[in-house]
Order: sequence, then structure tokens, then C-alpha cells
Amino acid sequence: MTVWLVGAGPGDPELVTVRGLGLIRSCEALVYDTLVAPELVDEAPEGALLIARDGLGQAEVNELLVELGSAGLDVVRLKGGDPFVFGRGAEEAEALADAGIPFDVVPGVSALAAVPASAWIPVTHRGVSAQLTLVSGHSASDDSLDYAQLAATPGTLVVFMGLRRLARIAEGLVAAGRSARTPAAVISRGTREDERAVYGRLGDIAVRAAELEQPALLVVGEVTAVGRRLAARRGLGLEHVRR
Amino acid sequence: MTVWLVGAGPGDPELVTVRGLGLIRSCEALVYDTLVAPELVDEAPEGALLIARDGLGQAEVNELLVELGSAGLDVVRLKGGDPFVFGRGAEEAEALADAGIPFDVVPGVSALAAVPASAWIPVTHRGVSAQLTLVSGHSASDDSLDYAQLAATPGTLVVFMGLRRLARIAEGLVAAGRSARTPAAVISRGTREDERAVYGRLGDIAVRAAELEQPALLVVGEVTAVGRRLAARRGLGLEHVRR
Repeated sequence: MTVWLVGAGPGDPELVTVRGLGLIRSCEALVYDTLVAPELVDEAPEGALLIARDGLGQAEVNELLVELGSAGLDVVRLKGGDPFVFGRGAEEAEALADAGIPFDVVPGVSALAAVPASAWIPVTHRGVSAQLTLVSGHSASDDSLDYAQLAATPGTLVVFMGLRRLARIAEGLVAAGRSARTPAAVISRGTREDERAVYGRLGDIAVRAAELEQPALLVVGEVTAVGRRLAARRGLGLEHVRR
Repeated sequence: MTVWLVGAGPGDPELVTVRGLGLIRSCEALVYDTLVAPELVDEAPEGALLIARDGLGQAEVNELLVELGSAGLDVVRLKGGDPFVFGRGAEEAEALADAGIPFDVVPGVSALAAVPASAWIPVTHRGVSAQLTLVSGHSASDDSLDYAQLAATPGTLVVFMGLRRLARIAEGLVAAGRSARTPAAVISRGTREDERAVYGRLGDIAVRAAELEQPALLVVGEVTAVGRRLAARRGLGLEHVRR
């Protein structure tokens, strides 16, 4: 009886880890996020309890995992990306620890580098960027990003975000001193079959990316120009669907 | 004929992706890094050309990949962690693009979050850290880290580094204004069977971690205290071998 906090990877079901897939295939209960590939949910054994997390608050998810674990089941808690990168996995781990339920973490491929890579963008690149900064711009109500600090940070900036906030984030960085000519890219539904990538600059990326769909990720920095060049060599334009 | 730049994951061979393993199992040539798990190299088909990268400079690796691709082979270039996170994968991609060789990138689980997670440390945690910064402190000769900037950055700092530089990095952060009491951890050979983790504070982490082995990763920030508490609830001490 163990609750496994498993990373499902960034979208493409083949980017799950071998260990994660093995655990899904042998679990007795699977609690999964909306963004997880349905192909992975389908890998659970016949008869396994399948529970979509939709509509449950974090406290309810914690409680559910404790209940399933207390019932003696082998539980996989399948989370998009990596459970410990903006995944709130450690909150679930703490709840399980408090309740005395055995648990473990199986990391996954985080969107943070895999989604840029899917648009050919390396988050670091020799002579171009030796530092990566990751923040989340998801909260619609509370804009807690420290634009002055982020605008002054060297290297590559990756923002997990809702697309509705893209214009505000780009404007915030420019207002805080980052050049509007800084190369930027938005990748929508990264690594999935319907991935779309748009390359531009901080000053125009929100307009260029206006018609993309969730989930999306913003990359800011010279590395996006490296990605744009690699994409061009593959015959892909400034806006393209998945290769 | 394609050259696949494949991430092998952070160490544990079961943390390779399903797609990456499938490509290894069907390749005609495998060019692999020293740090890649030998179990993954063993997955290549009988008769596949196996080439260790040891001793080759980056330019020679680029040339080798172009040669193997030009010969019409399906090549897997297996790299530790993720090819596009301090992996120089995009340099290899550029060389292949220049030579007109088809190539693709298959992301892997980067050590950046998987290795902290293996010591129970979430790189972000609600109310504790909403920002992640990653730098590399590998270069022995050239200390290019901007300590003033890093010391002033909020959230979690992860440093890929050689252990010989640990004391210098910790001292540099403290000299630049980060409190010596900031929680920190070093994880050696993360996710491998012989993983060792040491928790401490910036002021004593170098002494505590003095006997660890390469490769190692430094985590600085309050999230390491979250990890330490989770480890304690699993009955693990401030210095422990892999759970």
C-alpha cells in the first residue's frame, strides 16, 4: 500500500517515464489531472478505480489520497509535468506523511524545458544563456510577479501562464526595462499533436499569440532566436503547427 | 535516417521516457555520455554501433554525429538528463542542421527537479517558493557566477556543479548577502542506487557535504527545509543514503 505521486510528462503520452508507466499499469486506484493524456489513463488495469481530479480543491485531493491510501490501495496520483515543479505535489506528500500513509515521488518530464525543446528552443545555450528562471503567471486575480526583478535577471525566462495574462506579463517586463525587441516565443499545447509555436519579440508576442489555446508557456530570451533558426532549417515558419 | 538527441534522465534508468527507450531499442548507432546509466546502453540492439563519448570534445561529437547521420544510420545521441538543459544539445542540433541531416529532440527528465525530488525537496512550494533559478557552476577555471544577482533572487536556487566548487559557491552567496542560515542541501548521485543527500545551511553545507561524490547538485532555499521535514517523516536523517 503506497501512494505514488507520478509525473505524467508535458503532454505527449510517450514522454511518461518507464517507471511511471509501470506504476500506472499495476495500480488499484488512479487519481489524474485534467491535462494528463487520456492514453495514460487508459493504461490503468481493468477494474482500477479511476478518479478525475476536476472540480476538487487541493484540500479535497489531499483528503482523497489519504482515504485511498488508508483503504490499503496502491494509488497512482498522476500529475501533469513533474509533481514537484509547480505541481503542488509536496502538499500532497505532506498530507500523506501527516496521516502516516507510505508515499513516494516519481519525477516526470517537466514542461519547463520539454515544451521549449519541442519548438527547438534550448533553455540554455553556450554563449547565449547560462541561467534559467522559471515562474508561474497563472493566477488571474493576483499578479504577484516581481517585474523589476525578472526584467533584470540574465538568461532565459520561462513562464507557465494562462494566455489571458500574456499581454500583461509582456508589458510588465517591458515597462520594467526589458527591451521590447527581446526574442520571445509562446508554445501552446506543447509536445501534443496540436502543438502550435509562435516566435516573436516581447513587444509583439501577445498579438502574434492571440489565437493560441491553453495550456501555454512563454519563453523570453535570446535562446528563442536559436530555436527560431533551428525551426527555419526544418522548413518551419514563425508560426507553425507541430512538426 | 535520423539523429535523435535523447535525454536519458537523471540517473535511475527507469526514469528514461518510453519514447527514448523505444528509440534506443531500435537504433543502429548509439553515442552516449559517461553519466548515462549502463542499463540503457545495454538496451541497444545487438550489432548496433556503441560509441562512448568520453574523451571527445564537443566539436568532435558534432562531427561524429554528422558522419553517422551522413552514413544513413538511425542514430541515438543519448545524453544525461535533458539534452536542452545545460546539455549542449542545441549545438549538436545546429551542426546537424548545417549538414542537412534530419534530427529530432526527445526531452528527458532533467536532474534540475528530479534530483531534489529524490531527496523530497520540491523546487517550488506554495507559500514558500514561487520561483526557480538554475545555473551551472561546473567550470573550474572560470567562476562566472554573478553572486550579487543570485543572492538577491527570490525563491529556489539550483546549481549543477562540481563538488570542488561547493565551498566557493556557498561562500560567494553569503558574501553577496544571502544569509548563512539559508537552508541548503547537496544531493550526490541523485536518483541512483548510491544517492546520498545532505541537508544543512549555506554556512555549513560545504563541510557537511565534504565526503560526497560526483555528480552533485546544490539546492538553496526554504524548500530544502520542506524536503528535510518530509525525509524526517520517512525516518531519514540529515544525511542519508537513498531511501
